[in-house]
Amino acid sequence: MNRDELIANSRKARGVLPQLLEEERRIQALGALQEALKEGEADILKANRGDLERGKSAGLSDAMLDRLLLTKERLCSMVSAIEVVKTLPDPLGVERESTLENGLLVRRCRVPLGVIGMIYEARPNVTADAAALAIKSGNGVILRGGKEALETNKALVGAMRTQLSRLGLEDLIYLIEDTDRSTVDLLLSLRGEIDLVIPRGGAGLIRHVVDHAKVPVIETGAGNCHVYVHKGADLEKALRVLINAKTSRPSVCNAAETLLCDEAIAPVFLKMADEALSALHVELRAQEGARVYMPHALPASEEDFATEYNDYILAVRTVSGIDEALSHIARYSTGHSEAILTEDGQAAEYFLDRVDAAAVYHNASTRFTDGGVFGMGAEIGISTQKLHTRGPFAMESLTTIKYKVKGNGQVR
Amino acid sequence: MNRDELIANSRKARGVLPQLLEEERRIQALGALQEALKEGEADILKANRGDLERGKSAGLSDAMLDRLLLTKERLCSMVSAIEVVKTLPDPLGVERESTLENGLLVRRCRVPLGVIGMIYEARPNVTADAAALAIKSGNGVILRGGKEALETNKALVGAMRTQLSRLGLEDLIYLIEDTDRSTVDLLLSLRGEIDLVIPRGGAGLIRHVVDHAKVPVIETGAGNCHVYVHKGADLEKALRVLINAKTSRPSVCNAAETLLCDEAIAPVFLKMADEALSALHVELRAQEGARVYMPHALPASEEDFATEYNDYILAVRTVSGIDEALSHIARYSTGHSEAILTEDGQAAEYFLDRVDAAAVYHNASTRFTDGGVFGMGAEIGISTQKLHTRGPFAMESLTTIKYKVKGNGQVR
Repeated sequence: MNRDELIANSRKARGVLPQLLEEERRIQALGALQEALKEGEADILKANRGDLERGKSAGLSDAMLDRLLLTKERLCSMVSAIEVVKTLPDPLGVERESTLENGLLVRRCRVPLGVIGMIYEARPNVTADAAALAIKSGNGVILRGGKEALETNKALVGAMRTQLSRLGLEDLIYLIEDTDRSTVDLLLSLRGEIDLVIPRGGAGLIRHVVDHAKVPVIETGAGNCHVYVHKGADLEKALRVLINAKTSRPSVCNAAETLLCDEAIAPVFLKMADEALSALHVELRAQEGARVYMPHALPASEEDFATEYNDYILAVRTVSGIDEALSHIARYSTGHSEAILTEDGQAAEYFLDRVDAAAVYHNASTRFTDGGVFGMGAEIGISTQKLHTRGPFAMESLTTIKYKVKGNGQVR
Repeated sequence: MNRDELIANSRKARGVLPQLLEEERRIQALGALQEALKEGEADILKANRGDLERGKSAGLSDAMLDRLLLTKERLCSMVSAIEVVKTLPDPLGVERESTLENGLLVRRCRVPLGVIGMIYEARPNVTADAAALAIKSGNGVILRGGKEALETNKALVGAMRTQLSRLGLEDLIYLIEDTDRSTVDLLLSLRGEIDLVIPRGGAGLIRHVVDHAKVPVIETGAGNCHVYVHKGADLEKALRVLINAKTSRPSVCNAAETLLCDEAIAPVFLKMADEALSALHVELRAQEGARVYMPHALPASEEDFATEYNDYILAVRTVSGIDEALSHIARYSTGHSEAILTEDGQAAEYFLDRVDAAAVYHNASTRFTDGGVFGMGAEIGISTQKLHTRGPFAMESLTTIKYKVKGNGQVR
């Protein structure tokens, strides 16, 4: 894969975009993607079996193999997901308009960004989701999946391009088949040719993308989330929320990684947490002040508070009060989701106003940070940056503004 | 100026931000800025005279000296500009809210970005404007002005901090007094400490900022704007718009830099343009096909089409039709403002849909791209990037989203 080849493919995608101006045409294209998943089923599943065998030989973990796995059912749910995208409101069109005193008609329109790069790891469903979301919002997409899923992705994209070619739209989707790390950097270097890159994957991938991108990026996913149990908490309620935030799905970014507990209630609450969480096989790593109340806990290092475990592990420390909790969070938070548990409404407001994160919770689990839960329909990811979009984001974030101004010879 | 010192000052600014939660307090702070400009008048004008003298000795151009100059009247209009910012709607607060089936109240709020860096050149009014816009939207601001205006900026910021200190808010504004280029790079390197940097100034400054920033940036200003005269144009109208776009204020970013003319009308229109523009002392640089109709024109090089002159110079070329015009614009445009002149409505729609720029005009001058004209109140700049904000932007772009979620122990 060389630079010129990638630029040529990006330009081909861009060249097709004017054909997507009408929503009807975009809906047709999404229909073609669905057809591809149905008609290509046998080829796709065969390619996937190959990837799985290679993955097993290479010693991939069971979790990784499960992420890689496609089945008839999973292909069906990919088709359904595209159906949902089809029915979502058109993200393009006139947003506001006004006529100026001089008669100029100024229309603020939502228009596609252009060509979007998606860099992701093992899950092949991202291939179809990303293509559908990009096309529904009028964009072309360049996909760079992980090497584990290469044959599956080739089969998926091959089938999609075949179906799209019946509409003359095959160049909308392009798969980078060279999975050398250098192709990620190549994609990230193409300022002016690629309008946005979205990394989806582990912290290492995202860090690499953010550090090396010359193109615009939406930083997603990293979630070092805190649950702060304030001295005014209802301890039973707090424990229930903590258990949910930590254990309902530890591998995801909105799971809790650190418990902060007011010293005033530490002797009671930390004992409760120690019993309940250790019974659920959560490994506890506590700072000294907390460990005295937690017989099951190991000692925590500084490093533990900076780590997104994505696992059955929880770091714990006591704080003297809300301000110390806030400063701990300001120091270690990735700006994803943070929660306070308290019955003291004033303390809750104080916390919600001062925590600098995409989502802040009072008496609820951090696990709710999700586009689907927040009512956005299909979610592209969860942005942990502040510019462009923050928190769960959907198709609107794949668009930009264009002012279309119509006159009759007006001058200034 | 060293890194630790700058970080310390950014953190001091951030520490004050919770005091700006109430709009009333922000309005008080803007009042303090106005007081500073009134009470500090004598000191500020004295410092400005010093800068002007040094500027003259250093051989600054008259235009540059004029940009640097402060007078009683200019200080007064700075006070008025702050008055306008005071009266603009509060950019912070709840944007949308909904209650989920499980009872969770989800509020999408606009909140301040945090600490904003402003890098600018000679105009000292930016010092007051930037401070006012940042504070009204709940942010702190770190200013890095040009060396020509250093003493003026020191006097301005000194007076502002003195007045703000009566409210305990002086740390909201900090001036980097070291004008070595290295301090720009230092500011650009502080990821996690500075939430946004906005460069205001010439193309060289903006390029440097975009290339070196590790912090989020809004790229502003560069405008290589085109006027395309389509074969269906009303030639008198087209000429009037072209003259306005080129000559009403050539130094600004929304002025036209290149004329594209359909070959079919070139013999007539280019002759008209040649006469009218040369009479207005516009230097014409035309490609060969155009020069045959323009006796006053010099030959144009490739370089001319890539240049934002900001001067009484216009590049000219003929095109075979709308698609060639579009591909010329796609190649050379900075994505700022582009215009088509035609009475053919279909051709106009085709052009407006396909040009990738912040503002596209049908039968009107590119000079209208401006926050004031578009009805936004105070403008911070004109974004030529696609993410976060595009086109003229105002205070809303100094804010981000925070989801505040309130529950009663909900778990997922």
